[in-house]
Amino acid sequence: MKPSKVGPDSACPVARAALVVGDRWSLLIVRDAFDGVTRFGDFVASLGIARNILTARLQALEAAGVMTTQPASDGSPYQDYVLTEAGRGLFPLVLALRQWGEDQLYQPGEARSRLVERAGGRLVPRLRVMGSAGQALQPEETVVRKLKTDDPPVARPGRSGPRR
Amino acid sequence: MKPSKVGPDSACPVARAALVVGDRWSLLIVRDAFDGVTRFGDFVASLGIARNILTARLQALEAAGVMTTQPASDGSPYQDYVLTEAGRGLFPLVLALRQWGEDQLYQPGEARSRLVERAGGRLVPRLRVMGSAGQALQPEETVVRKLKTDDPPVARPGRSGPRR
Repeated sequence: MKPSKVGPDSACPVARAALVVGDRWSLLIVRDAFDGVTRFGDFVASLGIARNILTARLQALEAAGVMTTQPASDGSPYQDYVLTEAGRGLFPLVLALRQWGEDQLYQPGEARSRLVERAGGRLVPRLRVMGSAGQALQPEETVVRKLKTDDPPVARPGRSGPRR
Repeated sequence: MKPSKVGPDSACPVARAALVVGDRWSLLIVRDAFDGVTRFGDFVASLGIARNILTARLQALEAAGVMTTQPASDGSPYQDYVLTEAGRGLFPLVLALRQWGEDQLYQPGEARSRLVERAGGRLVPRLRVMGSAGQALQPEETVVRKLKTDDPPVARPGRSGPRR
């Protein structure tokens, strides 16, 4: 009955999230969706991804509630692939990837895209991990509390049998 | 001479970052490293990962400058695997994964770990994407500027020939 350490029943939210969006194509599909890409063919062109892999990733993201399909906004027979509200919640994750990439993976002066505010064009400032008093928080100043002890494991609706 | 859209020469920092840490095992290794895991065998035990896959991922993270090895802190003949300063820069990314997982992937009351401040034990607050004036910023209020036009592509030191 013990939740697995890495799978979908993990008690670690990082592990569950990594299972859903922790692959390169899924992250880049989500990035493109934030940038306004909605059409299957436009994801193919943007990512250079094989069509069968894109199909599988879009289906997985849809099953996970990250993306959904809707009739094309222009009345054409195509579908639009768009982020759900849950998917939009990945904005800080994509920004964290971007800012880490900017910091660590470019030489000075090397060309790269920038994320700016639509109004005014200013660079989006750095994400900061802050404590409850608004102070900057270093990794060493935090600790993972393994389980909330007053909040015991509860079976998920629609599931039965041992959880592995 | 055009940088590829997804590879290591991409002009998109999200794409470069996803190439380095955009896989589930790498993300979970980095998570464990933040939690204080340093030994090969402890990563194996924590992740349930095959030893050959762990070896490959640790080597890739070391080659990318995210992790490094050092003599064991206890004087034993083992190596410690630790985050570099660049690797420590992934703290917001791991926190973004955690918070998204907490929001989207748990039923109410389902047991999960919490990230708290070491001093005082308060929950680490939510990461917020903020604009230059400190306002909350929605994805639609941002836009990717494809290239900084006053900052043309510059060859990286030590590289020559066309970039693909």
